Amino acid sequence: MGTARHNLRVDGARLWSTLMETAAFGGTPAGGINRLTLSEADGRVRDWFRDACEAAGLTMGTDELGTQFALRRGRDMSRPPIATGSHLDTQPTGGRFDGILGTLAGLEVVRTLNEAGIETEAPICLVNWTNEEGSRYAPATMASAAHVGTFTTADILARTDADGISVAEALARLGIAATEQTGSRAIGAFVELHIEQGPILEAEEKTIGVVEGGQGIIWFDGTVTGFESHAGTTPMPRRRDAFAGLAEVALAVERIAHAHGPSAVATLGEAVIGAPSRNVIPGRVRFTLDVRDPSAATLDAIDAALRAACAEIAARRGLAITLDAVWRQEPIPFDPGLVALVERGAEALGLPHRRMVSGASHDACNLARVVPTAMIFVPCKDGISHNEAESATRADCTAGADLLLQTVLTLADAPAAPR
Amino acid sequence: MGTARHNLRVDGARLWSTLMETAAFGGTPAGGINRLTLSEADGRVRDWFRDACEAAGLTMGTDELGTQFALRRGRDMSRPPIATGSHLDTQPTGGRFDGILGTLAGLEVVRTLNEAGIETEAPICLVNWTNEEGSRYAPATMASAAHVGTFTTADILARTDADGISVAEALARLGIAATEQTGSRAIGAFVELHIEQGPILEAEEKTIGVVEGGQGIIWFDGTVTGFESHAGTTPMPRRRDAFAGLAEVALAVERIAHAHGPSAVATLGEAVIGAPSRNVIPGRVRFTLDVRDPSAATLDAIDAALRAACAEIAARRGLAITLDAVWRQEPIPFDPGLVALVERGAEALGLPHRRMVSGASHDACNLARVVPTAMIFVPCKDGISHNEAESATRADCTAGADLLLQTVLTLADAPAAPR
Repeated sequence: MGTARHNLRVDGARLWSTLMETAAFGGTPAGGINRLTLSEADGRVRDWFRDACEAAGLTMGTDELGTQFALRRGRDMSRPPIATGSHLDTQPTGGRFDGILGTLAGLEVVRTLNEAGIETEAPICLVNWTNEEGSRYAPATMASAAHVGTFTTADILARTDADGISVAEALARLGIAATEQTGSRAIGAFVELHIEQGPILEAEEKTIGVVEGGQGIIWFDGTVTGFESHAGTTPMPRRRDAFAGLAEVALAVERIAHAHGPSAVATLGEAVIGAPSRNVIPGRVRFTLDVRDPSAATLDAIDAALRAACAEIAARRGLAITLDAVWRQEPIPFDPGLVALVERGAEALGLPHRRMVSGASHDACNLARVVPTAMIFVPCKDGISHNEAESATRADCTAGADLLLQTVLTLADAPAAPR
Repeated sequence: MGTARHNLRVDGARLWSTLMETAAFGGTPAGGINRLTLSEADGRVRDWFRDACEAAGLTMGTDELGTQFALRRGRDMSRPPIATGSHLDTQPTGGRFDGILGTLAGLEVVRTLNEAGIETEAPICLVNWTNEEGSRYAPATMASAAHVGTFTTADILARTDADGISVAEALARLGIAATEQTGSRAIGAFVELHIEQGPILEAEEKTIGVVEGGQGIIWFDGTVTGFESHAGTTPMPRRRDAFAGLAEVALAVERIAHAHGPSAVATLGEAVIGAPSRNVIPGRVRFTLDVRDPSAATLDAIDAALRAACAEIAARRGLAITLDAVWRQEPIPFDPGLVALVERGAEALGLPHRRMVSGASHDACNLARVVPTAMIFVPCKDGISHNEAESATRADCTAGADLLLQTVLTLADAPAAPR
């Protein structure tokens, strides 16, 4: 039996077929998916997922935020289940793999176990987390965050979309009724398969990213204030040009991230000139920064370096520059034992792999706060994600699902959850 | 009579009183004026101007674009009149001096000549040009441009505002009927008094700017194209960040203008990130540049330097940068004899003065293409214009009007128009 289990592989064609089949729910002409959380299209894929899970013999449960749990019985039902899954919602112009791969690969794991007639020691729980993307409701990964207690359920249910529709109302419109309280679902460990959403694996020709944890993130809101004046009549030495100041800030952001490399990244993603005009020297600019690193100490150092750079630029140019850290998420290391298990599994499957930190945030980053957690990354073309052009190969998806299968199987068969 | 004329001074209190009285037409709570061209408020100030001119014994004419001409007879009516004036329209949050000072100072010149019982050799023509500002209809200074033949009258009449109302319709709504063809009004020379709209006179404690001409201008539209990607998952060395590229462009613009100083100015006034998001590396940015210098050769040199800088930045960063010159206006020198006359007048009046080039465009810049033209600048507080906070002192307005009076008088009494 041991040998048989180690040799077990998913049906790559079936996995690919479910990916392509469900891509029709909210499918766009450009080959992507528009399936905002709790939209009509999301409702249809949820129904499809429920039917597929029930056909696979799983028992469905739904929490107060609509997260779907599908339980496969184990020999010892007193043990908390080994959970896997991801999300089925997408960005408004999202792709066919972000979240969907992890959820449907979990289904493929279950189907493979069923066909092989395998009963695991611990039960297995397949999860479709509500609103990972955060496009319709803020924040992203709200349901897994509420599951681990970061937010109250009542808080999240009251959040509204751009049309003023609350999460509670959106759930009601789709006829989604809770069968259990948010946070009540027992989970012994969580493993999530996901596309990398970055270019590293593809560039290094690795099939598997063994994810060691989630980066820490700081989001800054900033302003540069100078003096708005006439572009034609204000001599260069008399200018206090807010945009020129921002330009220096942008290059300082880049320089500081490089100086804290190779892991640190920093991005000026938004910049809006107040009352812009072709012949007016900008007097005020708003901007945002996104800074990430796996180390809290490095985040602190970058924070300090950014503030020093802004202060120097402001003083030299006669500008006022503000920089407010509006959100900070500490780095989240994944469970070392589970990370090592994923790595050994990739090795055993003969898959080229490397350790890496997740640049993006995922439901797994919330779960990691309360249970042993790991993630498996597979490459995506050109590192593109949150885009209708998002693409992953069938071979890589299959390899990732095989590794997920082996990891879940090892965990569910282990005498106790590894620590 | 010669001595009397040289000692003639305007009534500064009366000038100030007309400035404050007419500021009520479209006056804003913040002390500025909202008097878009051919608006209801503009219609009321036009009626006031007509009445005031007729009360001063002037003969009114209106061209097809609504420009008002008020003629004061001279001894020799075969000579083309010496024209002065400016505009009474404002920006939507404009001030009480831009254009208005020049128009009402012209009225004050006429009133002063009337009170002194002076008959000039040549007639004098006071002008209120339609739509100098360009806020409601493009382009700015459209009526004086049509007067000198840069545009056809039919073209300008068909221009529409944001609500689709044409110039022709706006004129009709105010009951403005042409009494003469655009361009048919004979003008022998043109002198325009205006606030500087820049900080130089105030900073150097000069009362008078002797304007030598209008700068040349190039307007560029540009784009920077990189690759949009995830702020959290894209390592710094793999980025092709369009905004970081634009930051370098902005600093190059500044550096190149300084290198061509002290006269050159260059401004990045607009920058818009395509699909901006806090956690997305900008893939595309649009921007505009405004470049000015009194010398066409310097404009050419700046143009070349900008293109070289953009090419270097694009190549080094793996970006595509476009730079299109969408409009170029050649420098417009004013008549040297007229400029010298203004300078001698300032000297005779004991007014601190300096020569300068007009950074902004004015109706005088159009007139200069066909008749001897000069401008007189007076300081404005902090160089602020196109703003409700625009301010000039009564003393400076009076000094400017005195110099305008002496200049117009000298020209109108001269045996022939100076060349």
